[in-house]
Amino acid sequence: MTADRTAASGPVGTLGATAVLRALPSHATRLGTGFWSARVAANAERSLAAGLERMTEAGTLENLELAAGTVAGDAAAYHGKLPFLDSDVYKWLEAVSWHLQSTDSAEWHERAESVIALVGAAQSEDGYINSFVTVKHGGERWTDLPSGHELYCAGHLIQAGIAHHRATGRTSLFDIARRFADLIVAEFGEDGRRVGYCGHPEVETALVELYRETGDAAYLRLADRFISLRGSGQMGDRPFGRRYWQDLVPVRELRALHGHAVRAFYLASGVADVYLETGEPALLDVLRAQWDDLLRGKTYITGGSGARHRDEALGDAFELPADRAYTETCAAIALMHWAWRMQLATGEAQYADIFERVLYNGFLAGVSLHGDHYFYVNPLQVRGDSTLGPQGRQAWFSCACCPPNVMRTLASLTHYLATEDADGLQIHQYAAGEIRTETRGVTVDTGYPLDGNVRITIPQDRAGNWTLALRIPAWANGTATVHVNGEPVEVGDADYVRLTRTWRGGETIDLELPVRPRLTQADPRVDDARGCVAIERGPLVYCAEHLDQDTELAALSLSGRPWDGAQLQIADTTLPTVLIDAAAHAHDTKEPWPYRELGTKPGTAPTHTRVTAIPYFAWANRAYGAMRVWLPHEDAR
Amino acid sequence: MTADRTAASGPVGTLGATAVLRALPSHATRLGTGFWSARVAANAERSLAAGLERMTEAGTLENLELAAGTVAGDAAAYHGKLPFLDSDVYKWLEAVSWHLQSTDSAEWHERAESVIALVGAAQSEDGYINSFVTVKHGGERWTDLPSGHELYCAGHLIQAGIAHHRATGRTSLFDIARRFADLIVAEFGEDGRRVGYCGHPEVETALVELYRETGDAAYLRLADRFISLRGSGQMGDRPFGRRYWQDLVPVRELRALHGHAVRAFYLASGVADVYLETGEPALLDVLRAQWDDLLRGKTYITGGSGARHRDEALGDAFELPADRAYTETCAAIALMHWAWRMQLATGEAQYADIFERVLYNGFLAGVSLHGDHYFYVNPLQVRGDSTLGPQGRQAWFSCACCPPNVMRTLASLTHYLATEDADGLQIHQYAAGEIRTETRGVTVDTGYPLDGNVRITIPQDRAGNWTLALRIPAWANGTATVHVNGEPVEVGDADYVRLTRTWRGGETIDLELPVRPRLTQADPRVDDARGCVAIERGPLVYCAEHLDQDTELAALSLSGRPWDGAQLQIADTTLPTVLIDAAAHAHDTKEPWPYRELGTKPGTAPTHTRVTAIPYFAWANRAYGAMRVWLPHEDAR
Repeated sequence: MTADRTAASGPVGTLGATAVLRALPSHATRLGTGFWSARVAANAERSLAAGLERMTEAGTLENLELAAGTVAGDAAAYHGKLPFLDSDVYKWLEAVSWHLQSTDSAEWHERAESVIALVGAAQSEDGYINSFVTVKHGGERWTDLPSGHELYCAGHLIQAGIAHHRATGRTSLFDIARRFADLIVAEFGEDGRRVGYCGHPEVETALVELYRETGDAAYLRLADRFISLRGSGQMGDRPFGRRYWQDLVPVRELRALHGHAVRAFYLASGVADVYLETGEPALLDVLRAQWDDLLRGKTYITGGSGARHRDEALGDAFELPADRAYTETCAAIALMHWAWRMQLATGEAQYADIFERVLYNGFLAGVSLHGDHYFYVNPLQVRGDSTLGPQGRQAWFSCACCPPNVMRTLASLTHYLATEDADGLQIHQYAAGEIRTETRGVTVDTGYPLDGNVRITIPQDRAGNWTLALRIPAWANGTATVHVNGEPVEVGDADYVRLTRTWRGGETIDLELPVRPRLTQADPRVDDARGCVAIERGPLVYCAEHLDQDTELAALSLSGRPWDGAQLQIADTTLPTVLIDAAAHAHDTKEPWPYRELGTKPGTAPTHTRVTAIPYFAWANRAYGAMRVWLPHEDAR
Repeated sequence: MTADRTAASGPVGTLGATAVLRALPSHATRLGTGFWSARVAANAERSLAAGLERMTEAGTLENLELAAGTVAGDAAAYHGKLPFLDSDVYKWLEAVSWHLQSTDSAEWHERAESVIALVGAAQSEDGYINSFVTVKHGGERWTDLPSGHELYCAGHLIQAGIAHHRATGRTSLFDIARRFADLIVAEFGEDGRRVGYCGHPEVETALVELYRETGDAAYLRLADRFISLRGSGQMGDRPFGRRYWQDLVPVRELRALHGHAVRAFYLASGVADVYLETGEPALLDVLRAQWDDLLRGKTYITGGSGARHRDEALGDAFELPADRAYTETCAAIALMHWAWRMQLATGEAQYADIFERVLYNGFLAGVSLHGDHYFYVNPLQVRGDSTLGPQGRQAWFSCACCPPNVMRTLASLTHYLATEDADGLQIHQYAAGEIRTETRGVTVDTGYPLDGNVRITIPQDRAGNWTLALRIPAWANGTATVHVNGEPVEVGDADYVRLTRTWRGGETIDLELPVRPRLTQADPRVDDARGCVAIERGPLVYCAEHLDQDTELAALSLSGRPWDGAQLQIADTTLPTVLIDAAAHAHDTKEPWPYRELGTKPGTAPTHTRVTAIPYFAWANRAYGAMRVWLPHEDAR
C-alpha cells in the first residue's frame, strides 16, 4: 500500500509536481470510535496474529530459512507450489508496520523484527532475495519474468520497508529492501544487463514510492522504464493470451484494460504514480480512458471488478455475472490503489466515490467481521443448493495473496481519508477521528455510514485562514446539507463543499448526508441484474441472506414501492439490517420444465412477504448459504 | 453410439426384456431428401475425410504406430498430452462404419481397414490396447483409473467394433475389440484381479451393447459391476471433488446428477442400458429422479447442459448463464444417448421431446453447415466486443472429443427415428426417408422442421394389421392434426397418435404440426433469461445474430406482441430466418455508470425496429460475432 506519502513533498523539489492534491503524512490521521475503529481493531487484534500463525503453519516463513540455509533442505523441502509466497510475508510486515504507528507494543516490534531477521538472512550478498528461486530453482534468477513474480515480490518488500521506516523510524527492513532495489536498478535499469518487465505489475508503484522516500530518481526512471517496455509482447502467447498480462499494446496506447484484474489495476496504479511524478500528459490521458471504460460496464455495483474465474480477469463490457462473479478481494484493493492515485492526480470527486464504494462493499466483504476468515472470490449471489467450491470464508489459502493484502489495507486506512493542497484540507472519506497536518486540522465525529450525520470541529490550535473541502458523495448530490455553527451553507449540486474561512478554532460544521434505502437498477445489458433492483443505503450495498427471510430466497420477487416503508434496525453496529415490506411471490419450484410460452401464467399467485437485507460486507458471517444482491422487481426494466 | 440394437431381440431370449420399445435394426431406416439428408451428406462428404486429415496432422494415428513399434520413438515422441486420444480414432472408425452402411465405397472400406490395421498392430498379445499407456507410461496399465481413460478408450473401441461388424459384416475391428473386452473382463470382472472403475464412464454402455451383440452375459455382468462399484469414493478427493466423477454416493442412491456433464450422462446411459437388460426397478427409479432434476433447472432451452467452464460441469439448479454456457457438444450427444435409452425403457414421449430439442439445437450447433468446423463450447450469447477465447468454430482441438462424436452421431442418426413393439411401429423423429422392418414400414415425405407437414405412406408390401404411432411434439400438443386418406382423425392432447388398422398399402397419413414462431420465457430464477424471451419455431430455437440486425444487438429490447407479424424467409434450407417487426429501443452506450435509481429514466426513447432471427444451430456460419438467444422483452417477468 504505502501510498501515504504519494505526491507529498519529499527530499526532491519536483516531487509530486503534477498532483492536484497531496497525500497527508502517515501519522496525520488517527481514528476515533466509530465504524472503522471496530474494523481496524479486529485487524490489529486478531488478523495480524492469526496471519503470523497461518504463515508459520504454511511454511511460508520456513521457506525464508531454507533460502538462508539456517534450516537445511533441498528443493523438495520448499513449502507450497507458488513462486510468490514471500510476498505474503512482506504484505504482513507492511500491515504490522502501519499498526505499529498507533501502538507502542514492544511485543509487535519484536515480532516484526524477528520476521525481518528471517528476510535479512535470506538476502544474498548482492542484495537479491527470493526464497522460491533460491531453494527451488538453484538460484537461477530472472529466468521466468512472466510467471516468476520476482519483481512482484521485490515490490512488496520495498513497500514493506518503506512502511516500516515511516511508521517506526527504523531502517532494519528498509535497508534490506533498498539493497534489493539497487540490484534491480543495476539489472533492469537503462544501463542494466536486462530488458524486461514482470508478468505481475507491482514493483512500479513500489519504485516510485522509494523515489519519494529517498529522492533517488533512478527508481522513478526504472518504474517509467518498466511501464514503457510493457506491451512489447515479451510475455509471449501463453495461456489466456497477451491481454491477460496487459501486454497486447504499449501502455500509452492501452485505452481499455483487459485480462487479469489485479495485474491491470496494479499496472494502472504504477502508471498513475509515474504520472504523478513526471506529469507526462499521455499517461493521464490513457488512465482516464481506461477508467471510463472500466466504470461504464466492467464494475459491479459493489465496486468489485474481474468477472471471470477462468483467468481472474475483467469481463467484456456488461459481462457481470452475479453468481460467477470472481471479483477477487485483491482486485478490490488494487482498484482502491488506482482510484486514490487518480484522485491525487485530478482532485475529482468521482475517484473518491468509487474508492468509497469499493471500500465499504467489494473490499470489506473480503474479511469476516471477526477478522480471521477471508473470501478470495466475492460472488453477488449464492444459490440455495450451491455446489460451487468452498463454503464460506477461509482462514488461509494455498494462494494467500488476499489475507495480508486486507491486513495492510485496514492498517493503513487512515492514509486515504483526506488530502491537502495549497489552500487547505480535503476530506474524502468520513470516519470518526482526528486529522492534523502541520497547520490545519479537524476532529470528526460520525456514525457514518450507519447514519449520515458528520460533525466536524476545528481544534483551537489549528486556527488560521484555510479552506476545508468536504466531499458530497455522488449518491447524496443535491440532497446534502451543511451548517457551520448552526448556520446553513449553500451546497447545491457541488461534489465538494468548500468552506474558506479564517478559522478561530472551536467551530462546528455539521454535514448531513441523507442516508436512506435506495432501490438501484442496472443497465439492461447486465444480464444477471435485468429486471432486478439492488438495495443501497448511503455507501453501503445491501444483500438478502437466506436466514433473514420468511420465504425461500430464490422465490422472492418484489413489486410496488416497498422502499417507502423501509425500516432500519441496527442490531449491532456491524449489522444494520433494513426491513422492507414488499409484495412478493414465490415461484413454484416443482415445474418440470423451466420454459413456458410468453403470456401463459406460472403456477403461483403473489403472496405478501417482507424482505430483510443486511450490508453486503457483513454477509456469510452468521452462516453460509443462499444470498443475493440483485432482487427481482416488477418495475425494473 | 452403437445404440441401434439396443433392446432389439438378440441371440439370448431375455435380451431387452424390460424395454417397452425396441430399437430397429441399423439397416431399417434410410434417409430421403430433406433437412437431415443434407446434414448427413455434409458429414459423409466432408467431415469424415477432414477428420482423417486432422488426426493424421495431430499425430493421433502415429501414436498407434509408436505403440505398435512400427514407428520408432520414445515417450517424448508421443503426440499430444491427453491420455484419451485413441478414442478419437475409435469414434471416427465408428462414424465411418455407419457411413459404410449406406455406401459401397471401396475407398472408404479401404480407409477404414488401413486405420483398423494400425489399431490391430498396437494391440498387445493379451489384447490390451492404449497407445498412451504403452508409449508414455512404459506399459504400466491401470495405474490411474480416475484420469487415465483406459476403460473409456476401450469402450469407444468396442462401440466401433460393433458398428463395423453390424454395418459391414466384417469382423476385423470387432475381433480386436472383443479380445480387449475379454481382457477387461478377466481384469475387472467378479473373478478378476482388480476392483475398480473408470473415471470417465463410457465402457458400461459399450459392454452392454457387446452383450447384445454376442449374448455373452459376462459383459453385462461387468457393466453392472462397474456401475455398482461407483460412488464408493475410489476417485478420491481430487480437484473439483467427488461430485465431478459422480463418485459421491452409490449409483442407486444418486437422485441428482452433478459434476462433469459428459461423465454424468454417459454414466446414466450405462445405468439405463443395464436396466434395459436386467430390469432392476431401483435403476429406473433413480434415472427418473436424475432426469427430472436435470430438466427442472439444469438444461438450457437449447437442450444443452453443463453450465460451468471450470470443470465442464452441470451447474446448480437455475445456474444457466447464457454467455458463459459451457454446454459441451459431447454433453449434448451424451444426453441424446440417455434420452434414447429412457425412451426405450418407458415409451414416454417426454424423452423423445428432449432428444429432439437437443438434436436440432444444442447438438447441431456444434458443427458448421459445411461440416468441417466444430464448437466444443456452445454459448447462448456472445457480446459484441467479446474477448472470450477462440473466435468461431475450430477445425480440430487438442482435446478433440467433440468432432468425431458429432460424426458418429450424424452417421447413425437413422437409428433414433423410430422403434417397434409387439403392436407396431412408432415414429419419434420426423425425417424424410423410408423405415422398413420385417413386416412393417412407412415412407416419410416432409420438409420438417422448416414446415410442419409430414406425409406418411404405407408401402404396398407392408400391408397388415399393425399400429402406427406418431409422436406429437410437446410444443404442438393440442394443435396438431392428422388425416388418413384425407379423413380427419381425433388427436386431442395425445403425445402419440396411434393408428391401428389393417393397412392395405397405399394409404396416406398427413400429420400437420403447427410450426409458427413462439416467444418463450424462462423461470425467473434463470438469471440470464430474466425479462427475456427466446424465439422458438417448431423444434428449433432461434437466435439473433449481429449481422442481420439494423441496430446494435446489445441494444435490442422487444415490446408488444411482435410475433403476430412474424414472417418466415427461407433463404436456403439451412437458414430459415424469421423476421419480427418489433418495438425496440436502443440503450445509450455512453452512460458513465451502469447503475441508476429505480424510477429514473435511461437516456433514450424507444425506436421502432425489426429483429431477424435464424436457427441457433446455424449461427456463426457466415461470420462470428455478437449473438443472443435470450432477447429482452418488456412483458417477460
